[in-house]
Amino acid sequence: MIQAVGYATNHSFTDLKPLKFERDEAKPNEVTIDVMYCGVCHSDIHQAKNEWGNTVYPCMPGHEVVGRVSAVGSAVTRHKVGDMVGVGCMIDSCRQCAPCKEGDENYCEGPNSWLATYNGPMVPAKKAADEKNHYGRDNTYGGYSNVLVVAEDFALKIPAGLKPEAAAPLLCAGVTTYSPMKHWGVKAGSQVGIVGFGGLGDIAAKMAIAMGATVTIFTTSEEKLDEARRIGATGVPEENLKKEVDPTNPLTLSFDFILSTVPEKHDLNPFLPLLKRNATMVICGDLGPLMPVNNMQLASHRNGVAGSLIGNLADTQEVLNFCAEHGIAHEIEMLDIKDINDAYKAVEKGEVRYRYVIDMATLKAEDAD
Amino acid sequence: MIQAVGYATNHSFTDLKPLKFERDEAKPNEVTIDVMYCGVCHSDIHQAKNEWGNTVYPCMPGHEVVGRVSAVGSAVTRHKVGDMVGVGCMIDSCRQCAPCKEGDENYCEGPNSWLATYNGPMVPAKKAADEKNHYGRDNTYGGYSNVLVVAEDFALKIPAGLKPEAAAPLLCAGVTTYSPMKHWGVKAGSQVGIVGFGGLGDIAAKMAIAMGATVTIFTTSEEKLDEARRIGATGVPEENLKKEVDPTNPLTLSFDFILSTVPEKHDLNPFLPLLKRNATMVICGDLGPLMPVNNMQLASHRNGVAGSLIGNLADTQEVLNFCAEHGIAHEIEMLDIKDINDAYKAVEKGEVRYRYVIDMATLKAEDAD
Repeated sequence: MIQAVGYATNHSFTDLKPLKFERDEAKPNEVTIDVMYCGVCHSDIHQAKNEWGNTVYPCMPGHEVVGRVSAVGSAVTRHKVGDMVGVGCMIDSCRQCAPCKEGDENYCEGPNSWLATYNGPMVPAKKAADEKNHYGRDNTYGGYSNVLVVAEDFALKIPAGLKPEAAAPLLCAGVTTYSPMKHWGVKAGSQVGIVGFGGLGDIAAKMAIAMGATVTIFTTSEEKLDEARRIGATGVPEENLKKEVDPTNPLTLSFDFILSTVPEKHDLNPFLPLLKRNATMVICGDLGPLMPVNNMQLASHRNGVAGSLIGNLADTQEVLNFCAEHGIAHEIEMLDIKDINDAYKAVEKGEVRYRYVIDMATLKAEDAD
Repeated sequence: MIQAVGYATNHSFTDLKPLKFERDEAKPNEVTIDVMYCGVCHSDIHQAKNEWGNTVYPCMPGHEVVGRVSAVGSAVTRHKVGDMVGVGCMIDSCRQCAPCKEGDENYCEGPNSWLATYNGPMVPAKKAADEKNHYGRDNTYGGYSNVLVVAEDFALKIPAGLKPEAAAPLLCAGVTTYSPMKHWGVKAGSQVGIVGFGGLGDIAAKMAIAMGATVTIFTTSEEKLDEARRIGATGVPEENLKKEVDPTNPLTLSFDFILSTVPEKHDLNPFLPLLKRNATMVICGDLGPLMPVNNMQLASHRNGVAGSLIGNLADTQEVLNFCAEHGIAHEIEMLDIKDINDAYKAVEKGEVRYRYVIDMATLKAEDAD
């Protein structure tokens, strides 16, 4: 067993604090990673606070993990000791279902779906015949820790052109926005709308611009309008939009694709009239019930509203390579892990521009009980 | 001017009764049609009762119109006197916008959109700069009348293989379901779900089966389960579906496409877990605000919810030809126009199987004031 240390919380209402624990040694197909950096995702907070109702405690978040391979199993061929690698939201999947076989591990249809980097494996109540949560032997512990052990194909290569700490948020925020833009055909000349300008919206806009799209960012924050301009996008205050069709708005019927990155329930109806005929608005930020959508508006120009969940392994490698090639990265703010609880408060208030990344060198085993 | 007679209502709360009126003579590009049959669509009732808040009175419904050409303008080339033709929901469009030029007249982006067969032209308040309804010179009168005058390209050819009275409902109910099935790629081997088994669901299921799809019909009416079997589909009671993912339901993750034909607000969430990865549920029956959709479910398998509005002229001709070729038609019940007000009540109660068609020979000019 590997002696490990990380930051975890024991309840929905307590702070994260150091926890000593053990990880299994790498199996033949697995690699051991010395974690160097881990991004802080809004999902970490939802999960730590049990806001999705399925949290297993202790809960040790972290699914934007970058580090160096320190050991490899006997059958590993993709990585070698010393390689810089990244791990996102998944550390395994069923490998048997059609999506897994076709490389859509993030849409795994196995009985437990994909194995989450933290808070897994389990069968959630809504998927269980007896409607109770079923937990496996392990409650997976995520990347807020000094060491991680994963199947080699779930570890992505960090390209030389990316600063490792800036690569971390690409493993969740990056691929969560890259994957739908790719799936719905964003390309040079596309008119793309991005709703929300936080950790997801920032990287989505930069990537869309690098793809050759013209990007409009909708934000409720006046002060972010200048920042939109600075990255080459047009910022539009959300309050300029009407609830229904506004023939005086030049943005009406102008977008090939709109991506909402807002991590909470919000009204989609002001954005629907902005879609071109046959275009789709994708909601990747809010995974709860959507506010009622006006189907007369959808029908009038054959529009749709769709969901998208992170991205598959191939897309994750692609987004790392794409950002390295185009010199794109999040604005990041490095964090001492001892400040993680304050950082959560700042994320919840929307105060961080645009992504916290924990410097795992600040994690000391001697701080744990 | 042409002296005409039809059935119209003067208020949202009054019955339809005979009305004498005048139609303009056919312009060079127009044809005059002696109306023989007109289908009764649920939309007729919504419009007559001002349930969409935009009705201009007198309101003379009818947009499933079949009849013989009795006169043609000097420039007409498509039709000749004596031809059997049909007119659906549209009698013109702007002809200038991209959708019109690309043959998607039903998604016309002109300032007034397409010209409705009845209750047009107008600029509805939500599209008008001053937020008031704007009416043109005419309030178009629909097919509950003895004569109709339309641009020749908005009159479709009724194939010899179709009974004219059975062709009538194809002009709205038929194309409204055919168009989304075509757009979203229903083909031989597709697994198709149809929600609701009225005038739209009946023809949608028959057409999908003729395309080679396997069809499941979801209905709240126990007695319709046998009828589903009779046309070659599987009937499933809606109450068998759970609100959330049901791993014990063999229909989970099994549909390439689901079409809701229900003409009123209903919960979409029980159907979303039945969609395959990347599949879409299209709502063509209810044009109001949809009930809240669970985006966690949409995101889990990259599903979407979309709208679709009738179909273009090419699709309308195609659906007439397709149904003639495959021997498909609605179950229709012929109606004396004097019984139209009772028929509306039956439609509202869901008592008609599956479409009323008015026999316009029952309309007598001498009944009008």
